[in-house]
Amino acid sequence: MSRIDDLMRMIPDIPVNTTEKSLRTKSRDYFFWSPILKEKLDHIVADAVVSPRDESDVSRVLSACWELDISVTPRGGGTGNYGQAMPLDGGVVLDMMNMNRIKSVGMGTVVVEPGTRLSVIEEVTRPQHGLELRMYPSTLETASIGGFIAGGSGGVGSIRWGMLREPGNILKLRLSTMEQTPRCIELTGDAIDAAAHAYGVNGVITEVELSLAPAYDWVEMLVSYRDWNAALEAGWAVTHHEGLWLKELAAVQQPAPHRYFTRYREYLEPTDNTLCILVAPNAVSPLSANLEKLGGRVAYRSDKLTESDRKGLTRLHHLTWNHTTLQARKVDPDVTYLQVGIPVENPLDVLSQISKLFRDELNFTNTRGFRLYVLQPPYV
Amino acid sequence: MSRIDDLMRMIPDIPVNTTEKSLRTKSRDYFFWSPILKEKLDHIVADAVVSPRDESDVSRVLSACWELDISVTPRGGGTGNYGQAMPLDGGVVLDMMNMNRIKSVGMGTVVVEPGTRLSVIEEVTRPQHGLELRMYPSTLETASIGGFIAGGSGGVGSIRWGMLREPGNILKLRLSTMEQTPRCIELTGDAIDAAAHAYGVNGVITEVELSLAPAYDWVEMLVSYRDWNAALEAGWAVTHHEGLWLKELAAVQQPAPHRYFTRYREYLEPTDNTLCILVAPNAVSPLSANLEKLGGRVAYRSDKLTESDRKGLTRLHHLTWNHTTLQARKVDPDVTYLQVGIPVENPLDVLSQISKLFRDELNFTNTRGFRLYVLQPPYV
Repeated sequence: MSRIDDLMRMIPDIPVNTTEKSLRTKSRDYFFWSPILKEKLDHIVADAVVSPRDESDVSRVLSACWELDISVTPRGGGTGNYGQAMPLDGGVVLDMMNMNRIKSVGMGTVVVEPGTRLSVIEEVTRPQHGLELRMYPSTLETASIGGFIAGGSGGVGSIRWGMLREPGNILKLRLSTMEQTPRCIELTGDAIDAAAHAYGVNGVITEVELSLAPAYDWVEMLVSYRDWNAALEAGWAVTHHEGLWLKELAAVQQPAPHRYFTRYREYLEPTDNTLCILVAPNAVSPLSANLEKLGGRVAYRSDKLTESDRKGLTRLHHLTWNHTTLQARKVDPDVTYLQVGIPVENPLDVLSQISKLFRDELNFTNTRGFRLYVLQPPYV
Repeated sequence: MSRIDDLMRMIPDIPVNTTEKSLRTKSRDYFFWSPILKEKLDHIVADAVVSPRDESDVSRVLSACWELDISVTPRGGGTGNYGQAMPLDGGVVLDMMNMNRIKSVGMGTVVVEPGTRLSVIEEVTRPQHGLELRMYPSTLETASIGGFIAGGSGGVGSIRWGMLREPGNILKLRLSTMEQTPRCIELTGDAIDAAAHAYGVNGVITEVELSLAPAYDWVEMLVSYRDWNAALEAGWAVTHHEGLWLKELAAVQQPAPHRYFTRYREYLEPTDNTLCILVAPNAVSPLSANLEKLGGRVAYRSDKLTESDRKGLTRLHHLTWNHTTLQARKVDPDVTYLQVGIPVENPLDVLSQISKLFRDELNFTNTRGFRLYVLQPPYV
């Protein structure tokens, strides 16, 4: 009799799935964009997918798995790029997506269960409370808040609010600890660091309190430059004017915008080095003036289009962060990427040097410290 | 017959006041806090106070004064500290305070006439639109928006939005030009620099479009440190966590807080070096944790008090920027101040050195580049 059979007997009322398709699906993330991880992780598969319905279920599963010596890998939306949610040692994938209640919205705060998809939080807080997420990964619609906290780091909005783990963004985490008799503990302040970005290895997040931001109807813009360094310099300049409220600014080197942003191709030219921007309505005019003064051409503005014109266009955050890679892989399926942190001092010099080193490849940067990604030609 | 009589005949329908009391009152600002300016400017008095009712009035006054060679000094709330609104050459003070209409509120923007008091703008935009001023001087309740733009530079809110003249804060200025046949022109983008902080010498601001910020119910806090450098270091640290949304952070060296902040004295000790803070409700808890970790004592929190407990307390912005000097002068009427810009590099070292140089005097800093003021003992 397998340990999983034992487990199912110990938690008879908690949903467990052992179908091959489910095991395969719930054991994978987007690790395979990396040719190295693809080789190392492609065989990974769990023995069971367990779907707790509440905190009590989580504790019972952890306790039973401890007793049976079964590995447990918590999992949210499974949108990671580095195997964060993959059961390296088999055992149980703890699928948190059934714990998806929005419990309360306060004065600029929200309390949610970890399996809540990020866009679902905004669907409630934007219309009802005028509040939105401070930041989200480019997988807004598919990622869960628990997964973002346990396996993510920042995203669209980090230009204004910093990285997710910086003080004030996560206000409280409730955790079911990974031990023989799991405890339910609440972490605030510095203690949050123990569980944020810890991939669930020391405990399972069962509830989250976040700070939210005032909601804006962000205007989406593409601003193009003939010269990559000019695009970087212009982007760097405007991100330092705090009167221009930006939600995102990502720079993408030519020929990627025209080649890979297929739905926006009619607005772009093959030589365009393009800034992808989300900006508050009251900043569109002064931002445009600044970017044009620095040599930019406003290629696209969402507020100039009718609702029907915008049909077929993805939301602009789908061009930024690692969705740039996704767009590239839709056209060139073997493209991969390197992710590079840029030093705070002289980032433009470093970016320029990297651009020369990877001359025939493609670069894109994302705001908050101008992290750089290099899209690489097919891995051999 | 005097030139002012000629002027009154040329603009018979526009209110002109030549009573001695009015001339004296409308010819002064808070220049007399400076012993140097007090000696130089104390005799200044206008020949007439003219109160235009609209843009057409402004142009007619400017045109008539040009013809009669009468100097014109535009004036808002008269809350400046450096004689910005004083008629150095006599002639006409153009009192703009009757032009005080709030014309429209848009998507995070407002269009107002220049004589509108800053607090009056917020009285409309906060309850009706959930919007507030991005920044205001400590004279929120008495300063006008036109005067702030023409003679001010920043204030409470600059920690988040930068100085008033930075891109995106002022969206448009309408100006009646100072020339023989005044033109009504509109300035946007970089062109705004020609009239912002120009004291009205090249034209009179007749309408203003500003970006606003989402309104918060700011929590007021006093956090005290035994050591001045510790207070500065803690303040500097938390202003760099972008997840902690601050509206203001000012540091005041001992013994000033206890000696001069008389209405808050019950919360303070004589040795307190105190941070005066306005913070968003969702940041109070993580901010407090950070400041306490750095050795601070939370001396006062407005959200812990009942409405009746708060009676008699000034709003906390009245302890910051040059209101710190005002509080000091209420206790020691001969106190004056020096205002010093601090370099962006190593501000804490410079602040520490200045503090040693002025050892027995009193320092306070205000956020946005940690500008320093030194309160001086009575001028001899």
